[in-house]
Amino acid sequence: MLRKLLLYLAGAGWARRLTTQLFLARRVALRFVAGETLDDAVAATRTLNRAGLAVSLDYLGESVLHADDTKAVVDTYHTLIERISADRLDASISLKLTHLGLDISEELCLLNLRHILTNAKDADIPVTIDMEGSDYTEQTLRLYRTVRDEYDFGNVGTVIQSALKRSRDDMRQLADEGARIRLCKGAYLEPPHIAYADKADVDKNYAEIMEDYLQHAPRSRLEIATHDEKLIKRAEHLIGSLRVPVDGYEFQMLYGVRGARQAELAAAGYPTRVYVPFGEAWYPYFMRRLAERPANLWFFLRSLLRR
Amino acid sequence: MLRKLLLYLAGAGWARRLTTQLFLARRVALRFVAGETLDDAVAATRTLNRAGLAVSLDYLGESVLHADDTKAVVDTYHTLIERISADRLDASISLKLTHLGLDISEELCLLNLRHILTNAKDADIPVTIDMEGSDYTEQTLRLYRTVRDEYDFGNVGTVIQSALKRSRDDMRQLADEGARIRLCKGAYLEPPHIAYADKADVDKNYAEIMEDYLQHAPRSRLEIATHDEKLIKRAEHLIGSLRVPVDGYEFQMLYGVRGARQAELAAAGYPTRVYVPFGEAWYPYFMRRLAERPANLWFFLRSLLRR
Repeated sequence: MLRKLLLYLAGAGWARRLTTQLFLARRVALRFVAGETLDDAVAATRTLNRAGLAVSLDYLGESVLHADDTKAVVDTYHTLIERISADRLDASISLKLTHLGLDISEELCLLNLRHILTNAKDADIPVTIDMEGSDYTEQTLRLYRTVRDEYDFGNVGTVIQSALKRSRDDMRQLADEGARIRLCKGAYLEPPHIAYADKADVDKNYAEIMEDYLQHAPRSRLEIATHDEKLIKRAEHLIGSLRVPVDGYEFQMLYGVRGARQAELAAAGYPTRVYVPFGEAWYPYFMRRLAERPANLWFFLRSLLRR
Repeated sequence: MLRKLLLYLAGAGWARRLTTQLFLARRVALRFVAGETLDDAVAATRTLNRAGLAVSLDYLGESVLHADDTKAVVDTYHTLIERISADRLDASISLKLTHLGLDISEELCLLNLRHILTNAKDADIPVTIDMEGSDYTEQTLRLYRTVRDEYDFGNVGTVIQSALKRSRDDMRQLADEGARIRLCKGAYLEPPHIAYADKADVDKNYAEIMEDYLQHAPRSRLEIATHDEKLIKRAEHLIGSLRVPVDGYEFQMLYGVRGARQAELAAAGYPTRVYVPFGEAWYPYFMRRLAERPANLWFFLRSLLRR
């Protein structure tokens, strides 16, 4: 019986087409990811570095629910830091607190975070704590300040999302603290009372926060993380008119998105960094990429239909 | 709306688990395949050759329905033959007639087959025409004889399945013709009036055909393609008692199945060849592997459940 079912499925056209589509989907998804292994990530970093682009390496993963699983995450970051050092890569690292166990306990997460920050500090590698959904904003900022101030890690930065209404105030305070901040729009599903529903408001908030923050450079440092051409143009203008020193900002874009524009910014002399994710847990990352840019979604659907 | 749906799917635990399982399934499937590229296949062949094992390389694919698609298949086999020659690999090739267009027209299929056979003959590489489901048995044997006798390709062999009741007679005739035949049990869903339903009958038929056929060696040549230890033991005994010359037979097993036993046979001095499939169309091949060996299926299910 079972044998017959399996042999039927082996021959059935619909089953073959379905699996072909699914695994084609995987291949398209992997265009936004350097690969599933650390070696893939190192190879991509080398290529980008040669093109004059700095990199931030992100070991994909989030929402870890078992404490044991966070050990492997810390180990991978440890290996990654060693590789960055040994291969003299121009790379920082990015990490997510729920990957380090924030959903299990704040103590575990802080312990793991300090472990990685210590390794990174020894190797002189900057670390950015990624921002996740708004459920984590407060906790993330608190833990960021804890490691920065109480444990004295100067190599740490974090992220602010212009989609959130609170971000304006957060950024005023962070500017006073001289923080290194990646400013992005935000790619999470948020309740309307705390986030702007309208894309135009998110963009406007981005532009205003950017202008304010750049005025504090280079004491604070702004990482302008966007693919929005209008905002990039606006940033170029501000950098010129405010005479922002070169260590007071950088542009950031994602691996696999607007590669030509990344190269162009680097060639024009702007410090530019590519966010390079790697690892097997690419599914949620990929879905957020589809959600944030209609072009990505259409490209994805077209690829599936072409077969 | 669409953005919200995608972001919901990015965060939903069930969606994450489902995709993780699916892509884990792919990884397990790939244990039975050298890889998705020709380079993967060449690398696997080199490793097996170093261990004293010959290889038969199969570019995965079957049931092609568009004539244009068969061109790429012929091209891939052409490249493969060049690589086998250039890298001096100990490798034959295996192909399926429905991959070369048999479902479109016999003329197209014959043309493609002759093209590949010519390339292979020039490079002194043996070719085996795989046997598919019983709908194709008659046509496959006819085309095999056509290229062998009318077009004079001495480098071609084909396959007989002990699951089919006709195989006894087919093998008597093929022995008279001095054919090189791979004998396997058969991995297709067959109607009961033409195939043995009972595993014991399939095995008995295998043993009897094997004994008959080995007596004609080395004029004919038997490729003993099985993982069944009882049949392998029986073959070892027959090879000794009938004093079958070394060019009159070989053992064959599949890539990823009983690797230790493969090495053992080669070490004992038996000519042994591993069937190495590669390419993206691994789905039906993998399903047949699951169907033919309960152990493969349980291994597969266990791997999925461990996560």
